[in-house]
Amino acid sequence: MPKLILCRHGQSEWNAKNLFTGWADVDLSEQGKQEAITSGQKLKRQEIEIDIVYTSLLKRAINTTYYLLEQSDQLYIPVVKSWRLNERHYGGLQGLNKDDARKQYGEQQVHLWRRSYDVKPPEQNSKQWQSYLEDRKYAHLDRRVMPEGESLKDTLDRVIPYWSDQVSQQLLANKTVLVSAHGNSLRALIMFLENVSPEDIVGYEIKTGAPLIYDLKEDLTVIDKYYL
Amino acid sequence: MPKLILCRHGQSEWNAKNLFTGWADVDLSEQGKQEAITSGQKLKRQEIEIDIVYTSLLKRAINTTYYLLEQSDQLYIPVVKSWRLNERHYGGLQGLNKDDARKQYGEQQVHLWRRSYDVKPPEQNSKQWQSYLEDRKYAHLDRRVMPEGESLKDTLDRVIPYWSDQVSQQLLANKTVLVSAHGNSLRALIMFLENVSPEDIVGYEIKTGAPLIYDLKEDLTVIDKYYL
Repeated sequence: MPKLILCRHGQSEWNAKNLFTGWADVDLSEQGKQEAITSGQKLKRQEIEIDIVYTSLLKRAINTTYYLLEQSDQLYIPVVKSWRLNERHYGGLQGLNKDDARKQYGEQQVHLWRRSYDVKPPEQNSKQWQSYLEDRKYAHLDRRVMPEGESLKDTLDRVIPYWSDQVSQQLLANKTVLVSAHGNSLRALIMFLENVSPEDIVGYEIKTGAPLIYDLKEDLTVIDKYYL
Repeated sequence: MPKLILCRHGQSEWNAKNLFTGWADVDLSEQGKQEAITSGQKLKRQEIEIDIVYTSLLKRAINTTYYLLEQSDQLYIPVVKSWRLNERHYGGLQGLNKDDARKQYGEQQVHLWRRSYDVKPPEQNSKQWQSYLEDRKYAHLDRRVMPEGESLKDTLDRVIPYWSDQVSQQLLANKTVLVSAHGNSLRALIMFLENVSPEDIVGYEIKTGAPLIYDLKEDLTVIDKYYL
């Protein structure tokens, strides 16, 4: 039976500093690394055999993937990286301290940006734009496809095509698939997978560094889900 | 212009113990890990931008790849893993101490196995065979394709189709390609690339953990080569 494992990366350096991260490519903190190592050891103890991994282009997710596979002795598994699994793009908020943002924009506005379904963050400033356009990671993308500040809905709109064309194809072939990604790209997947409403998904919390396992029927409806 | 970077993995745990390794999936030693880290830092300092990596299914090559990309901040690059880049399969010699092998089979025979072009090693015993057939890494391979003990010529015969269909395609598209592999799978590539004779290739030594860079013409003939 197909098995889907979702893993949100462990704590990042900016999570630890309370900064909006989005597509900023910050690494795992030491704690985040340890979370991934511990989960990799659990995968090994429970003898969970992964067939393929999908992850983002951001190093906190790629490093989480590495430790999961390295600790469970499955480094030989194919790992496919795509911008479509990146975190929600946080536009002009990226790099801003969350408390400073509240002072600047007001508590209510920041709450709206963080916990609404279809409200976009403010635009990037010209310096942020420039470094984004020059980022080698995204050089292969048509400029018109590169997301600007995204709402959760925007994130969903670019994650689900990848689900349909890549991830679900492996599950329909009865594989065990790990998606190693981010809070909001995983929320988008879960919304689709479990048919969660826009109102409910914004409050849906996913543990960091802890694989969430879905046992699926052949048609990919959910039988059971549980943390590893 | 296309650029090809060959990297032989750093010292492994069995290199350190003087055992025949082949397809035995042993990890890097601490020294081997440090070699890869140092080379990754050099890649970063020299701003060498890699477009795609090809590596084997063996963790000593995959971990070398990881440290090269991690240290040069290029983890987002695609990494493709294939059994075709594995080390030469050493058959019944795998796991044997090289000095013990000399006592058992004689100095001359061991030299012949190690340094001839087309002499195959002895066959695996039944226990080795069983664990090989049950290895999840190779479950996707037709049993008739799985190599048994290989001569260097046998290794060449399975490496070159991969070169032609995968690696060279990227180079012909003007990419910078890293092949992160093993002493003998890289010898096979070099023999083809530089048109080295069977007599000369067997004595050809490649440094461990040190990227060997080839600047190529558009038709993939070699302009220059140098260690990073």
